[in-house]
Amino acid sequence: MIGQLIQPEIEQLINARNWITLKEIFSEMHPSETADIISDIPEKDRAIVFRILPKENSYKTFEYLEFDIQEELLKSLAKEELAEILNEMSPDDRTEFLEELPGPVVKELVRLLSPEERAIAVKLLGYPEDSIGRIMTPDFIAVKSQWTIEKVLSHIRKIGKEVEYIDTIFATDSAGKILDEITIKEVLLAKPDSIAEEIMNNTYVSLNVMDDKEKAVEMFKEYDLYVIPVVNDENYLVGIVTADDVIDVIEEEATEDIQKFGGMEALDEPYITVPLFQMVRKRAGWLVILFFGEMLTATAMGFFEHEIAKAVVLALFIPLIISSGGNSGSQAATLTIRAMALGEIKLIDWWRVMRREIISGLLLGLVLGIIGFLRILVWNSFSNIYGEHWFLIGLTLFFTLIGVVMWGTLSGSMLPFVLKRFGLDPATSSAPFVATMVDVTGLIIYFTVATLLLTGTLL
Amino acid sequence: MIGQLIQPEIEQLINARNWITLKEIFSEMHPSETADIISDIPEKDRAIVFRILPKENSYKTFEYLEFDIQEELLKSLAKEELAEILNEMSPDDRTEFLEELPGPVVKELVRLLSPEERAIAVKLLGYPEDSIGRIMTPDFIAVKSQWTIEKVLSHIRKIGKEVEYIDTIFATDSAGKILDEITIKEVLLAKPDSIAEEIMNNTYVSLNVMDDKEKAVEMFKEYDLYVIPVVNDENYLVGIVTADDVIDVIEEEATEDIQKFGGMEALDEPYITVPLFQMVRKRAGWLVILFFGEMLTATAMGFFEHEIAKAVVLALFIPLIISSGGNSGSQAATLTIRAMALGEIKLIDWWRVMRREIISGLLLGLVLGIIGFLRILVWNSFSNIYGEHWFLIGLTLFFTLIGVVMWGTLSGSMLPFVLKRFGLDPATSSAPFVATMVDVTGLIIYFTVATLLLTGTLL
Repeated sequence: MIGQLIQPEIEQLINARNWITLKEIFSEMHPSETADIISDIPEKDRAIVFRILPKENSYKTFEYLEFDIQEELLKSLAKEELAEILNEMSPDDRTEFLEELPGPVVKELVRLLSPEERAIAVKLLGYPEDSIGRIMTPDFIAVKSQWTIEKVLSHIRKIGKEVEYIDTIFATDSAGKILDEITIKEVLLAKPDSIAEEIMNNTYVSLNVMDDKEKAVEMFKEYDLYVIPVVNDENYLVGIVTADDVIDVIEEEATEDIQKFGGMEALDEPYITVPLFQMVRKRAGWLVILFFGEMLTATAMGFFEHEIAKAVVLALFIPLIISSGGNSGSQAATLTIRAMALGEIKLIDWWRVMRREIISGLLLGLVLGIIGFLRILVWNSFSNIYGEHWFLIGLTLFFTLIGVVMWGTLSGSMLPFVLKRFGLDPATSSAPFVATMVDVTGLIIYFTVATLLLTGTLL
Repeated sequence: MIGQLIQPEIEQLINARNWITLKEIFSEMHPSETADIISDIPEKDRAIVFRILPKENSYKTFEYLEFDIQEELLKSLAKEELAEILNEMSPDDRTEFLEELPGPVVKELVRLLSPEERAIAVKLLGYPEDSIGRIMTPDFIAVKSQWTIEKVLSHIRKIGKEVEYIDTIFATDSAGKILDEITIKEVLLAKPDSIAEEIMNNTYVSLNVMDDKEKAVEMFKEYDLYVIPVVNDENYLVGIVTADDVIDVIEEEATEDIQKFGGMEALDEPYITVPLFQMVRKRAGWLVILFFGEMLTATAMGFFEHEIAKAVVLALFIPLIISSGGNSGSQAATLTIRAMALGEIKLIDWWRVMRREIISGLLLGLVLGIIGFLRILVWNSFSNIYGEHWFLIGLTLFFTLIGVVMWGTLSGSMLPFVLKRFGLDPATSSAPFVATMVDVTGLIIYFTVATLLLTGTLL
């Protein structure tokens, strides 16, 4: 925010090598803003600026930097500086940073950690990708349920400095198994000589360390929480997940779904930084599959070559008809996929959805059918392009559009159910995929209707 | 979570009218789970079950219920019960509840509030839709910067009960203008006789009450916060926004973008509960616009009617060609729109994106062009469908596909920039919209290439 406003000024100070003033400015700046500035200045100045940051700020600032800039800084920093930064990073951000790097580099970096932090890092990196273990932090405050509030408070005062999030603390039994969560509010409002157990209400929820990240998203939405404790299979408290971590997960998931929906593999990297050939590869895959599917249209049309030769006018409406089917199909697929992702509809709702979509498809088909017929009616009064049989051609278009739109709507809405039923990701039924599927059938519907209505006149 | 497991048991207890056991069960249940159970039991039992909930739980449970069940309960509860629930709801959830109801009902309900809560409700409802004012809560703890830590702590103990979120408190000057935010951690770790000002660092960020909700999303992502203070134009602290509110906003926005991207207006309501005719209307709008656009294909093809009559074989590849353009265009549009939504690319990056997309389009077009040519080569060795000029037809397909895919990729990626430049939502450049645009030009490219290569032989 501030970053952009004063950036020219800061650049001047860097050019003038005015470190003292810069140091002052950075010491009053939010680490996120400092990170913005470091991202915007020329590469050669980044390491210098980073070094003049106040110690405490530099750790935080590093966490806020984009991955490629972190990697670049990493190369220019001395081993000792690097060790210090890595040791001071919060464990969840460090895991995220490390998992982007190639294996040998990670090994190298983990060796720089203190024995204590190394144990944490190795443990977090050991959890499967996309598991809660990867986004949790092992920094939390646990108290025994038999302690007095006074003891709880003095415990918080003692170890609070090391812990990022102290607004909720956790009560465990003497072995370390979780019993409940207690908010700092409840602690502050309780009498100092009461026992922690007295302010427990046993209504906590928890995540398993092996659960999928998406589970955390669901629970944060369901329970409106700021933090959720993470336990292992024996119910021992091993970490916490906080709401800010989940905001990133939600955005990532929406991006994946949207990209799949656009008819390609998820990029998993920002558009602007993903290597060009990697991106082309991810896009070519689906494009080629769709192309093979779409080749069936050429085969299908081969069967109707004689009809087209007899009545070339039929060819004119082919793009109009197949795109109407594709568009209505992509609408239906979008709605179904998103409703599934949000948990609004489940597999067993297929019949409810089908009923809705049959009616919607019929109505939408009627609307387009009427417009299509009117187009032929109006054009016919100005020119003779459709010949003497314009009325029959109009009728063909009318019935075809109803059929094609209904079919598009129905297959667009049912395909995600089919995919889900077979354990595949419903988001794969992308707009282009549905359109391709509907194109082939749309042509068959078109020429069937035309044969029925036009044989003896045009055909 | 628990809800589904013990639901049969609970239904049995309801049928047996065993209120005492039920009361016990509900008193130990998370309000969110109680809300799940109330949603799942038959309508006629809901009000009864709701009435046996412990007071404190019933307010919370009401907040967790879906809007239509809240409305239904509202009708069955006595005025006094209703007044109590409304008065105890947290102000931000109450605003959300009230804004869904028709105007006269809102007036009626606001009259049930205590004068204090009424003032809050009227104020929050007065902020524009989609503004921060609508999602903030006016419950927060403010302290004066000159107070001692001891006084701050006793203030928190005094008014903390009334306030939902106390993990961050706010320091103001004597007039109430915000000076800084202080975490409860900083308060707890400070010496009791030091002054609040001493633990301030003046690095807070804030939102204006009239800012758009999306601003809150951006800031939560940028700063990894749990709470952001909200100020008015004079910098007076008027409320706070918490991370859990923002999680809902993010999901809503992703849904809107995805639905627009599927080629329709955003539904603004869950798929399963939105009235059928309202949904059909929202879908029909775009479908009709796209249909009118697509009619241009019929016009364009009218110009090439003689070519088709001469070489019917050209018609066979029309669907294949236009869909390849549409698919590559929808990929490019998806990538660009999402990258814009995430702030990865901005308006000034158009040239960088264009360069990438020209190369991608060329490569993707080459891949499809080669496959298309091979298809004709292979088919030709089995049958005589393409006649003696199969090689020229294959070449036509090859060059057309390169042209169409490049054009699709380019227009798909640039359209979001054009829309954004003119202040429109880039997400409007949906897959179907791009496909329609590319269809017309795709046909022109096809027949132009065909005329160039085939005149004198087939044409």
